[in-house]
Amino acid sequence: MIPITKEQNIETIARISPHIHKTTIATSRILDEMAKATLFFKCENFQRTGSFKIRGATNAILSLTANEKAKGVVTHSSGNFAQALAMAATSQGIKSWIVMPENAPNTKKDAVKQYGGEVILCAPTLVARETTAEKYVEKHGATFIHPFNQLEVIQGQSTAAMELINEVQNLDYIVAPVGGGGLLSGTALAAHYFSPSTKIIGAEPLGADDAYKSFKQGVLIPQNNPQTIADGLRTSLGTLTFPIIQVLVSEIKTVTEEQIIDALQLFWTRTKIVIEPSAAVALAVVLNTPETFVGKRIGIILSGGNIDLKHVSF
Amino acid sequence: MIPITKEQNIETIARISPHIHKTTIATSRILDEMAKATLFFKCENFQRTGSFKIRGATNAILSLTANEKAKGVVTHSSGNFAQALAMAATSQGIKSWIVMPENAPNTKKDAVKQYGGEVILCAPTLVARETTAEKYVEKHGATFIHPFNQLEVIQGQSTAAMELINEVQNLDYIVAPVGGGGLLSGTALAAHYFSPSTKIIGAEPLGADDAYKSFKQGVLIPQNNPQTIADGLRTSLGTLTFPIIQVLVSEIKTVTEEQIIDALQLFWTRTKIVIEPSAAVALAVVLNTPETFVGKRIGIILSGGNIDLKHVSF
Repeated sequence: MIPITKEQNIETIARISPHIHKTTIATSRILDEMAKATLFFKCENFQRTGSFKIRGATNAILSLTANEKAKGVVTHSSGNFAQALAMAATSQGIKSWIVMPENAPNTKKDAVKQYGGEVILCAPTLVARETTAEKYVEKHGATFIHPFNQLEVIQGQSTAAMELINEVQNLDYIVAPVGGGGLLSGTALAAHYFSPSTKIIGAEPLGADDAYKSFKQGVLIPQNNPQTIADGLRTSLGTLTFPIIQVLVSEIKTVTEEQIIDALQLFWTRTKIVIEPSAAVALAVVLNTPETFVGKRIGIILSGGNIDLKHVSF
Repeated sequence: MIPITKEQNIETIARISPHIHKTTIATSRILDEMAKATLFFKCENFQRTGSFKIRGATNAILSLTANEKAKGVVTHSSGNFAQALAMAATSQGIKSWIVMPENAPNTKKDAVKQYGGEVILCAPTLVARETTAEKYVEKHGATFIHPFNQLEVIQGQSTAAMELINEVQNLDYIVAPVGGGGLLSGTALAAHYFSPSTKIIGAEPLGADDAYKSFKQGVLIPQNNPQTIADGLRTSLGTLTFPIIQVLVSEIKTVTEEQIIDALQLFWTRTKIVIEPSAAVALAVVLNTPETFVGKRIGIILSGGNIDLKHVSF
């Protein structure tokens, strides 16, 4: 039923730890007062490439055979996984082709190039992304690495929560944002094996609430025209991530765009730490659901800190 | 010639340390590579009230007599000193009146109120600020505390560099932004007494370069119509700070608005740490003067992290 074992989780954290940062866990007296709870922020914004995605990318790269490594890897991503796979591949001397929609922010394209990935632009549709990636698989024999719907990637993402659980005991909840579900399913696996009394909550923008609907209705409902500032959470759940979430996640809660922006500004202002909108979604859920969270010990996975500051005006 | 002694500096750090944060010193491999130097960032953005100003404010408050404490304090500030004095006063049970220009950002007014200060609005001119503050001195017998042109305040500001020097040896340079000159003169005093081989550089926006001009010409030249994003650096040097800077500072270097914004965005993007534009001025000077700084060990005082995010659009 659960496709990843406790032993695999332990092997994964041992495999990738030399290649990633063990990120800090931040606390804030003022945010605790506002939430009337005790919050532990797992700062994946300080992770290599600025997000948790390097964990899954690294695990996928290190799991390749020598023959696969020689032929390179390909993925499609408009966001943090693009940078993460480029860096993880380059640091192992492996070629990477990163298929990105042509309207992706320049900072994200530039970052992929800086990490040694080759950027392949395509039309901004899922079909165009997938067919473009397939071409590189066929032409070069490259291995396709999915941004979230792949067991090695999910295993890698589980290590953020493993570190959190190892450092902070007796968490009542861990809240993680949910887009494709790699982080949320990995977080749920970590708690299932290493802190079974901790409840896992998925945090999702109301404007991209496919996970909320899928979870409620028990069937995978694809994202349709997502409208949210949280660019990391616009994707649909995957066929591998959804079943794990169904079994191991307690609830998925949604927040409005205004609540996301308020949480983002609050966090930046109070902690002086840059988080991306997707990370603020988790904090927004905690701040706007006092009936669940008041008085509790809550881990919040800050997914990343990558934000296109060229769009920020002062 | 130098109106503050080594012993007074030592007494000051002992006096205020229980009331302030000993802030972290950040490093960044990527920024070191870009600057071709070794950079040590003194993170006063993580300081209480989000800037170094709490150091001087606390020292001024703790230096009051019992009679003065009973009657309260007044200052005029549109920025970080306003919040700092309000918090320093409130935490000692002292009343504070904070005169602010009516066009000051709401976040700054709100912060002063949250720290327990009473906000007094006035017209946005220096004359209006000073006469309004004087009224509260006359009416309530309150003690006026100047944001920078006061020895106790300068002493307090020197403690940021004292902590830096104590933790990082053999700095070739310390770079600090200069507005009224409290931070820069305090930094220079700290190096003079505790690391005399370290050269001190003032960093100033080209659009508010009164310190640069005053330093070059040897006479105090008031700021005239400053135009800079670095809102903390729009003030003129003071009659107490300027003579210290003349004697103990090696040079004042200026940077353009574009260089300031580039440095700000670079720092946010690479470190995921929020700094305010005034803090970015010091980094901008280092990045844009390679002939001085390449190969050197450089302390950079990040003055604060207070930025009005309501003006940031995504």
